[in-house]
Amino acid sequence: MRPYELIKAKRDGKRLVPEDIRAFIEAYTSGVVPDYQMSALCMAVFFRGLDSVELGAWTRAMLESGEVLDLSDTPGVKVDKHSTGGVGDKVSLSLAPLAAACGVPVPMISGRGLGHTGGTLDKLESIPGFKVDLPVSEYRRLVREVGCCLIGQTASVAPADKKLYALRDVTATVDCIPLIASSIMSKKLAEGIDALVLDVKVGSGAFMKKVEDARTLARTMIGIGAEMGRKVTALLTDMDQPLGRAVGNALEVVEAVEMLRGRAPADYTEVTLALTAEMLVLGGKASSIAEARQKLEASVADGSAVRKLKEIVQAQGGDPRAIDDYALLPQARSTVDVVAPQDGFVTGIETEAVGLAAVALGAGRQRVDSRIDPAVGFTLLRKVGEPVKAGEPVVRVHYNDPAPVEEVKARLLAAYRFGAQAPAPRPLVVERLE
Amino acid sequence: MRPYELIKAKRDGKRLVPEDIRAFIEAYTSGVVPDYQMSALCMAVFFRGLDSVELGAWTRAMLESGEVLDLSDTPGVKVDKHSTGGVGDKVSLSLAPLAAACGVPVPMISGRGLGHTGGTLDKLESIPGFKVDLPVSEYRRLVREVGCCLIGQTASVAPADKKLYALRDVTATVDCIPLIASSIMSKKLAEGIDALVLDVKVGSGAFMKKVEDARTLARTMIGIGAEMGRKVTALLTDMDQPLGRAVGNALEVVEAVEMLRGRAPADYTEVTLALTAEMLVLGGKASSIAEARQKLEASVADGSAVRKLKEIVQAQGGDPRAIDDYALLPQARSTVDVVAPQDGFVTGIETEAVGLAAVALGAGRQRVDSRIDPAVGFTLLRKVGEPVKAGEPVVRVHYNDPAPVEEVKARLLAAYRFGAQAPAPRPLVVERLE
Repeated sequence: MRPYELIKAKRDGKRLVPEDIRAFIEAYTSGVVPDYQMSALCMAVFFRGLDSVELGAWTRAMLESGEVLDLSDTPGVKVDKHSTGGVGDKVSLSLAPLAAACGVPVPMISGRGLGHTGGTLDKLESIPGFKVDLPVSEYRRLVREVGCCLIGQTASVAPADKKLYALRDVTATVDCIPLIASSIMSKKLAEGIDALVLDVKVGSGAFMKKVEDARTLARTMIGIGAEMGRKVTALLTDMDQPLGRAVGNALEVVEAVEMLRGRAPADYTEVTLALTAEMLVLGGKASSIAEARQKLEASVADGSAVRKLKEIVQAQGGDPRAIDDYALLPQARSTVDVVAPQDGFVTGIETEAVGLAAVALGAGRQRVDSRIDPAVGFTLLRKVGEPVKAGEPVVRVHYNDPAPVEEVKARLLAAYRFGAQAPAPRPLVVERLE
Repeated sequence: MRPYELIKAKRDGKRLVPEDIRAFIEAYTSGVVPDYQMSALCMAVFFRGLDSVELGAWTRAMLESGEVLDLSDTPGVKVDKHSTGGVGDKVSLSLAPLAAACGVPVPMISGRGLGHTGGTLDKLESIPGFKVDLPVSEYRRLVREVGCCLIGQTASVAPADKKLYALRDVTATVDCIPLIASSIMSKKLAEGIDALVLDVKVGSGAFMKKVEDARTLARTMIGIGAEMGRKVTALLTDMDQPLGRAVGNALEVVEAVEMLRGRAPADYTEVTLALTAEMLVLGGKASSIAEARQKLEASVADGSAVRKLKEIVQAQGGDPRAIDDYALLPQARSTVDVVAPQDGFVTGIETEAVGLAAVALGAGRQRVDSRIDPAVGFTLLRKVGEPVKAGEPVVRVHYNDPAPVEEVKARLLAAYRFGAQAPAPRPLVVERLE
């Protein structure tokens, strides 16, 4: 089928044949199909969708456009976790050592922050010396020997997705569930994993603001996993306020290490344990979620989780002393507090606005090539449902450059809502799908 | 509004602001907006449409992307006709001299044949010496002095449309009514006309197979005309069989001249008179359709119509003797007949298939750069509703190259349907809109 005919067929709501999808994506990746035909097809997909067979073929073609890592030399069921992104989402930093400490090999390829969400790679790089650009051979060795490796996407993984994502980004075809799902899954399946836990964020700080959309995305990714013969479990988790109290790279590393010591905020701890427990069950290291939770709590209590983190840090070139002595992490020179304008309770936090305030402060990227400041960020001294008095600190801003601080404070204040009554608490894990 | 935001707004069903549409189309024409953003927008327009205000802005931006001819030195109301294209559609060849003979100035910029439909320029060029690539100054002079000039589109007219049409052609966004309508109207309004008659073909040989679609297209173009302050009248006319009996360039010229002598097939004569009468009314040369018809019939009877054609031919470098002596037109060396396989009636003709058979014979273009043979074509000896006997000739094939003849005959036979009963006649003018 010619590219023109394939675009027209999708436009007219016809089902595309897997071989035609594969040929189109291969031709696009090699430059034979030009951007303008792919962008027309993506817009047609936005309106017409892709069914499970089409989506399987689409994802497989993107996956197989590049290198698919082979981790068969590591025994056991390799399990990764993917988050659709949020604010204060440092789950990977604690989940990976927890799962590895409990015997689940974790091959994890992560991304950088863009837009209002942070990125695991940026957080890791705030640990002095930590390298995320290891060669594939080293990645494979560390998964086998340490039980975990956290690296960035290499150019050889899913090049079709890289090219397509850049095109979608400028043609208003990013927020399209089948294209999001196939993009995520093609990258994740290229890691060499056997199973995957999805953390689909929902709420004001997530890409999916509504539960229905988050559920559809989760189901779509689970369907792709089934087409590709991989077990996938998804939790929809709350992102209607930032997760934990730390927002900003080094600040989040500290909170993540504290979690491994049993001292982190309850919401972040709970979401991390819930997701990691799913990994243990998928990885065959626990026969139930309850058993998995016990093992995870034991790995915190006996110090094996934090030891595993130090092992990972050392193996990836980082300074493991920073895990014990936070003064070795980047520190902002100054702090200033945003204070409550009234007595009462925090009734809501516009979470995307908090993420954008962090970007404005330098903790995240305005553009792909922006430099970030690993030391800066926020400590959320009050979260939703907590009482405040007028003039009490609500958010502590950690900064180096004073220039954006007044704007950042104003953004934060505008993002907080206050009221006389505490709202009913929202569930942290909204739904579980498999 | 950034290009990305404009695409997203249309994708999400929002109404675009005229200035944003203009800026987008200007940026596209100048190359600042790349093809992949325009193709995404066109696909979004395919699904979301354009309302009358958006469409007016879109058309105006395309129109004003190039030269808009000024014919104000010609007195009177300048009127043109546009056909959406069909098989055997030689209406312009007789309509233009008829209208001009009755005092309506006709500035006509036409196209070439592509796909299954023929083109006015190709037909005109079968007259020895006839030039369709006159400079604009000459075009303007002939409209003023002769009352009519028939030329091809110049590079300076609506360059945005030229660029966009080429893109739509490879991104499955051609058959989208607002984009069709704005493409036609931007070119026609650039001619310097005051009013326009539209011949929207409907049936198996037309781009619009269904009356509803033809009506929507007609209404859309009338709406654009209203936005731009031009009077537009549309007739939906039958294209469920070829118009007249001649298909092929020189053969159609002969039939057109015969029409001006009152000797052409009734269907072609009727459609031409109906459309030309609308031009006389719009041009203020008749106060009613009935009066216009009388004037047109008088111009045939007194020979002034055929004299006007000779004048046009001479003015554009052609040999006017060919209008009297058809032997001076290109003649095919051989003919062969397709015969009826059974007694009965012709019950239908797959008109697009006849057009494609003409292309296969060399009368039309397979590709933009194909050469055509002006002499070859068909004479339809039997049309829908006419009786046949088994073995009687149905179509006469005029050819030079014998290579494609057997295939062409088979295609023609397959395009004809025969039956025991004559079908009810279809109206030639299906509907009139203004």
